Amino acid sequence: MIIPTATLLVSCPDRPGLVAKIANFIYANGGNIIHADQHTDLTTNLFLTRIEWQLEGFNLPREVISTAFAAIAKPIEAHWQLHFSDSTPRLAIWVTKQNHCLLDLLWRQKAGELPAQIPLIISNHPNLQHIAQQFNIDFHHLSITKENKFEQEARQLELLKEYKIDLVVLAKYMQILSEDFVVQFPNIINIHHSFLPAFAGANPYQRAYERGVKIIGATAHYVTKDLDEGPIIEQEVTHISHRDTVKDLIRKGKDLERLVLARAVRLHLQNRVLVYGNRTVVFS
Amino acid sequence: MIIPTATLLVSCPDRPGLVAKIANFIYANGGNIIHADQHTDLTTNLFLTRIEWQLEGFNLPREVISTAFAAIAKPIEAHWQLHFSDSTPRLAIWVTKQNHCLLDLLWRQKAGELPAQIPLIISNHPNLQHIAQQFNIDFHHLSITKENKFEQEARQLELLKEYKIDLVVLAKYMQILSEDFVVQFPNIINIHHSFLPAFAGANPYQRAYERGVKIIGATAHYVTKDLDEGPIIEQEVTHISHRDTVKDLIRKGKDLERLVLARAVRLHLQNRVLVYGNRTVVFS
Amino acid sequence: MIIPTATLLVSCPDRPGLVAKIANFIYANGGNIIHADQHTDLTTNLFLTRIEWQLEGFNLPREVISTAFAAIAKPIEAHWQLHFSDSTPRLAIWVTKQNHCLLDLLWRQKAGELPAQIPLIISNHPNLQHIAQQFNIDFHHLSITKENKFEQEARQLELLKEYKIDLVVLAKYMQILSEDFVVQFPNIINIHHSFLPAFAGANPYQRAYERGVKIIGATAHYVTKDLDEGPIIEQEVTHISHRDTVKDLIRKGKDLERLVLARAVRLHLQNRVLVYGNRTVVFS
Amino acid sequence: MIIPTATLLVSCPDRPGLVAKIANFIYANGGNIIHADQHTDLTTNLFLTRIEWQLEGFNLPREVISTAFAAIAKPIEAHWQLHFSDSTPRLAIWVTKQNHCLLDLLWRQKAGELPAQIPLIISNHPNLQHIAQQFNIDFHHLSITKENKFEQEARQLELLKEYKIDLVVLAKYMQILSEDFVVQFPNIINIHHSFLPAFAGANPYQRAYERGVKIIGATAHYVTKDLDEGPIIEQEVTHISHRDTVKDLIRKGKDLERLVLARAVRLHLQNRVLVYGNRTVVFS
Repeated sequence: MIIPTATLLVSCPDRPGLVAKIANFIYANGGNIIHADQHTDLTTNLFLTRIEWQLEGFNLPREVISTAFAAIAKPIEAHWQLHFSDSTPRLAIWVTKQNHCLLDLLWRQKAGELPAQIPLIISNHPNLQHIAQQFNIDFHHLSITKENKFEQEARQLELLKEYKIDLVVLAKYMQILSEDFVVQFPNIINIHHSFLPAFAGANPYQRAYERGVKIIGATAHYVTKDLDEGPIIEQEVTHISHRDTVKDLIRKGKDLERLVLARAVRLHLQNRVLVYGNRTVVFS
Repeated sequence: MIIPTATLLVSCPDRPGLVAKIANFIYANGGNIIHADQHTDLTTNLFLTRIEWQLEGFNLPREVISTAFAAIAKPIEAHWQLHFSDSTPRLAIWVTKQNHCLLDLLWRQKAGELPAQIPLIISNHPNLQHIAQQFNIDFHHLSITKENKFEQEARQLELLKEYKIDLVVLAKYMQILSEDFVVQFPNIINIHHSFLPAFAGANPYQRAYERGVKIIGATAHYVTKDLDEGPIIEQEVTHISHRDTVKDLIRKGKDLERLVLARAVRLHLQNRVLVYGNRTVVFS
Repeated sequence: MIIPTATLLVSCPDRPGLVAKIANFIYANGGNIIHADQHTDLTTNLFLTRIEWQLEGFNLPREVISTAFAAIAKPIEAHWQLHFSDSTPRLAIWVTKQNHCLLDLLWRQKAGELPAQIPLIISNHPNLQHIAQQFNIDFHHLSITKENKFEQEARQLELLKEYKIDLVVLAKYMQILSEDFVVQFPNIINIHHSFLPAFAGANPYQRAYERGVKIIGATAHYVTKDLDEGPIIEQEVTHISHRDTVKDLIRKGKDLERLVLARAVRLHLQNRVLVYGNRTVVFS
Repeated sequence: MIIPTATLLVSCPDRPGLVAKIANFIYANGGNIIHADQHTDLTTNLFLTRIEWQLEGFNLPREVISTAFAAIAKPIEAHWQLHFSDSTPRLAIWVTKQNHCLLDLLWRQKAGELPAQIPLIISNHPNLQHIAQQFNIDFHHLSITKENKFEQEARQLELLKEYKIDLVVLAKYMQILSEDFVVQFPNIINIHHSFLPAFAGANPYQRAYERGVKIIGATAHYVTKDLDEGPIIEQEVTHISHRDTVKDLIRKGKDLERLVLARAVRLHLQNRVLVYGNRTVVFS
């Protein structure tokens, strides 16, 4: 049997006693820490930590942990999140026509690798509807044009609300989200098919081929208003040679894309990623 | 200016409150933690931690930190080590005829990558004496035969004592140390030219070639009485193809060997490696 | 439009003039070579080559190419195979209960990455029958016991004949094939969940964990009568840390297994693999 | 004993019969081919090949091979080079203040990994003169300012002529060569400390840190008049984490730089690199 845990992600200005203060809060209430990791960014004097403890034997009821910790967090000017391992986040996957990232995420969710529910798939094309049906997931086809983008984004936001979505995963969704959308729903992970910042923008494989690089890559990052500029969660690369055509790059890249995206989503779902500035700390 | 730090490496049976207990010890005495990492091995119920704090502003004089921490360590049945970042360990490098690992370690030490002094090189052959001279390091040639092994090991132990050596690095020392030697001087890192446990023992590149593997590797591990069976610190591999002859494997392997050995020695010198059973935790 | 090609895989004792002889055969008959690669194993004095040319404009009808080339092959004592790119090989995939390699191969076949038909899935358990149905592939459940192994293998051979199977892929088929079976049907690729020769045999992830390695891997190889000893086609590895439990190794290993198996099957289907002795040349 | 070989690197418009034509030339004159590799770039319809044969038993004297092959090359409009394995190219290494790439190349040359002579080191700073002395290599200190750049480049060209240099290796030479210089001496390999095209230009490690990438790299390329835009020979990368400061990136990058540069120089010296357009074919 898996014992449920609570996880705190905390960032605040560095000062002596932070580790002790947070550990004491958990210990004083009878919690057993099973994972504690900490990082100090000396260039910004920022303290960042992830601390996870078993709820069994913890004296505070779940409902009051937040209030109790807020009393500690306030004087140290902390940003913090509290997560419980048994409250499963809800994912929406957005796609266009390519199925490899979608299928990979769905397979991993079924295999127990992704601690999440996936009640919603959104696409600007109808092509992948049969996959949604096969996995018994609601599929919404919202085609996007220059003219209707604004209203379609409104509809998308409604759907995210309706389905109580916690995280949007852009699994090869070949559309740019408006700044306004990202402000209203900031929890979005995207997969970009290059080792950013190389070949940001469109057609990275074609451009990689033309430049004659010997390595291609993929990047999973949080979406911000600046295209392809959000905080990077995970990257991976593979070697290529002169024998590889653009078509080969695309094929090899698919393996990178699904691997990198799945890793990033898993790390996020396990509350292992802390964003600060345009960077991430990944407590893996 | 680099502020000196103290580092505690602690392992003990897991129980609630360990993180708080150790963090409190440091905080109560005015220390600022700059690195804290922790691991719980649930299969053996063992708690392992590395905690590093700045000595500036720490209220306890260095001489009494050990005594003070012992009072905490005893009731929790902890094994522990205390290290100061400004007390530089002393290394002896042992070699036979190949120079690549030796030169690499010496270059890195000069470049500031290895926080250690290297006052002593021991070899069972005279071939690399000129390198010792060039780097102004004492070189002792102790040839080994079946007959003289016992007395030569006694002489080696004397030298380690005389030069106040903290760590022996076997940088392609092609001799097996006796069980007795290892018991008397247990701080030894070896580089093995295969991705152990594959091709343990002699001639790994020849055997890798004969088996037709597509990947070769190197392994840095602590030396124990069981040959090639000690706790692994670091491993790295590289792809090979049918075009690679045994000579090519040896050439490519040299790059792996020097990289892996240097990484392992650096991790050890930064007190990032904790051994338990036949395994290591590497707090990197 | 893709122009069909013919591919010759040839191995013979090395002597001057082999490249010229084979290239002339193709040129004299009007063929345009689009890929020619060659390897000489100097330890065994063996010449190995892969040569692929466009059939368009080639003067010899397909039916007579074999006869014509035999006249060249005989005096040079060559072993050789002739393949046409538009005659699609037929695969049987054998599984037990795990679905990741099976799904991956089926997805790649649908995506056009594997130039093969897959008319048959055989399993010693009924668990994955629904996947076969979903992909519209015949599924045969043949449970194996000590007592019935002999007759079930006879039945399996019948099925391979009936379905005109060219290649069997053991996609996590957790049974050992008898020597007799392998002699009668030698075209078998297996995926082993370790970087062979490390952890040959059962439970490699458990044993990798116990040994405390820092790297795990997977190996695709041809099956021979000696278990886990056949010629290696492809290997891949990934780094692990002390944080990874056996369950994590299994999860990470799945990604390696499906990647390595898919690469090996693709290389085989493109006629890029030549076996000699217990080794392979991979003309990639 | 190593038998000397001749190597032809040929590129020309693709047409049927090219492999046969070149192989016949060698066979007809009694040569034994030990390496033949070929690539057809279908996007540009270009045929590129590398063919190496033993000179022992070859009927043409060395002096006439060029003339003889020219008769074949002309009608097929080929660009081609002829190299003999026993005529050792002469390298000049250019440095500024960092020694890691220089030492690595010198060590490899001594270890027999680089088939070249290294008679000349040029630097715009005097710092590394002692290394030149130690290896008994002429060292020329030519400081560069905006004002004297033109005349210093003239002096550099004189030195390359005087020392009969075949290849210049920029081993962390932190100066940009003028377009005019590159036109007059086009055989130059540079190491750039990023996975180009990411972070082209100055301070790549600082910029990689600021962007928060999870992978850093190094790139060896031929120098052209367009800074950091020349044909790429080799690239390699390594993973980093939030724990790595800019200083750590620089340290880890050094290992990449020396590995990638050494590989590229070795490939070039073995005549395995063919440039076409802004791309390379590497026959490895």
